[in-house]
Amino acid sequence: MTFSEKLKTIWGKNNSLVCVGLDPDLSRFPDHFKNVSDSIFQFNKAIIDATHDLVCAFKPQIAYFSAEGAEKQLEQTIDYIKKNYPHTPIILDAKRGDIGSTAQKYAIEAFERYGVDAVTVNPYLGYDSVQPFLSYKDRGTILLCRTSNPGAGDIQDIEVDGEPLYMRVARLASEHWNTNNNCLLVVGATWPSQMSEIRRITGNMPFLVPGVGAQGGDVETMVKSGQTNDGTGMIISSSRGVLYASSGGDFAEAARDAALELRDEINTYRKKV
Amino acid sequence: MTFSEKLKTIWGKNNSLVCVGLDPDLSRFPDHFKNVSDSIFQFNKAIIDATHDLVCAFKPQIAYFSAEGAEKQLEQTIDYIKKNYPHTPIILDAKRGDIGSTAQKYAIEAFERYGVDAVTVNPYLGYDSVQPFLSYKDRGTILLCRTSNPGAGDIQDIEVDGEPLYMRVARLASEHWNTNNNCLLVVGATWPSQMSEIRRITGNMPFLVPGVGAQGGDVETMVKSGQTNDGTGMIISSSRGVLYASSGGDFAEAARDAALELRDEINTYRKKV
Repeated sequence: MTFSEKLKTIWGKNNSLVCVGLDPDLSRFPDHFKNVSDSIFQFNKAIIDATHDLVCAFKPQIAYFSAEGAEKQLEQTIDYIKKNYPHTPIILDAKRGDIGSTAQKYAIEAFERYGVDAVTVNPYLGYDSVQPFLSYKDRGTILLCRTSNPGAGDIQDIEVDGEPLYMRVARLASEHWNTNNNCLLVVGATWPSQMSEIRRITGNMPFLVPGVGAQGGDVETMVKSGQTNDGTGMIISSSRGVLYASSGGDFAEAARDAALELRDEINTYRKKV
Repeated sequence: MTFSEKLKTIWGKNNSLVCVGLDPDLSRFPDHFKNVSDSIFQFNKAIIDATHDLVCAFKPQIAYFSAEGAEKQLEQTIDYIKKNYPHTPIILDAKRGDIGSTAQKYAIEAFERYGVDAVTVNPYLGYDSVQPFLSYKDRGTILLCRTSNPGAGDIQDIEVDGEPLYMRVARLASEHWNTNNNCLLVVGATWPSQMSEIRRITGNMPFLVPGVGAQGGDVETMVKSGQTNDGTGMIISSSRGVLYASSGGDFAEAARDAALELRDEINTYRKKV
């Protein structure tokens, strides 16, 4: 099954647009993970088990593993999801981007070494830096378009021929680069009016939407701005808001409650088909 | 010593602007590395020993290690340089870029886990994604400006207020973001006229210059376009042209010859002070 098919299936099955971002930050783990050698994997496992039926994807953020030298625990986390929840797509948030021959190595890292369904990619180096990812037809390539951070506008909002640069990126992606129908866009929840503009020109291309929760994106305007006509088209990612909903022994239940609340709030504003 | 000081010292000591890029590609290793468990480290070690007195930096490209699950051999490679050639700066070519809290983790990956002197960073996410790197005052942050690949122009050449986007990135870096005087730019050797424009507005900011050799950049025009008034200001990186100068048992000698030839050709065109 391709990434797109997996996504459509699970949007329906779990009735959810929520993606749980796995950003394991040791300093925020509950106390009983202290002195546990594979605490990152154990923490992730508990979160995954607690939320798997409420999500449309899991999104490990590789930086949190790399900073700790914990590649093995990233592999364990991914393998655990694949074995226990094989219908749940896994997105590696890595924001890779390099010249063609090196991009090929990064594509191998994501799709072969870790074996994930999709990866985030930075478009600044142009088509030949993105193509090695897109050439994996059954996997998703999720291009940064308009990100959720405060400084996003420094480059992405620069005006080009009467519209912001991120619109040019959206047009390149949807009109030129998406020949295998496996390209998606990152569009931050913190900028709903931009999201509406991008939706207008990209048809049903799915968006990965970070920035809800800790980063302050509003759910109602976000869903109304980003959804497609069938009430899907979005992978709405929450990391800190779910992972660290409680810092106590009840962290997994609290994570489940937070994911459930977000799923239901999102569903309130989705178009019914 | 800061990265800038290390760089100035070694430019003089080795009379070289050459950087050897460590892009270890198993399929191109000489036959006697087959079935060697730490062949990546052993190959790198031979290249480093053969070229250390001819270079101003070594630049491991992390994608080649990540694709093979060889983080440990990257650590070994870096540790080997630090122990044996402590005056030689190490640049981690990683092209990281993410929102602030995640960028912080990538900065830890580069500067604390691997302990390198400098890292390449993608500017597409704006200042708050770059600042966590720049805040390490003794390390270098090397921002992608105009890259060497064929598709670089897709985004970087887009016209903004009468000049290309890469000029805007160069201005942001040199006029606004470089408060710690530790910011550098990636400017590809394949575009010498762009390099001249960027040099014109960035004073003595050093450039990391990939694209000479395998990618086809011409040495004379490149050096004349990029050098500062004292005949330095450039870290000119060659990877494949040095690493794979021979595929036989003489690969290390051939690498030395290639690095020596490049150093001397570059020096022909440098301003004498």
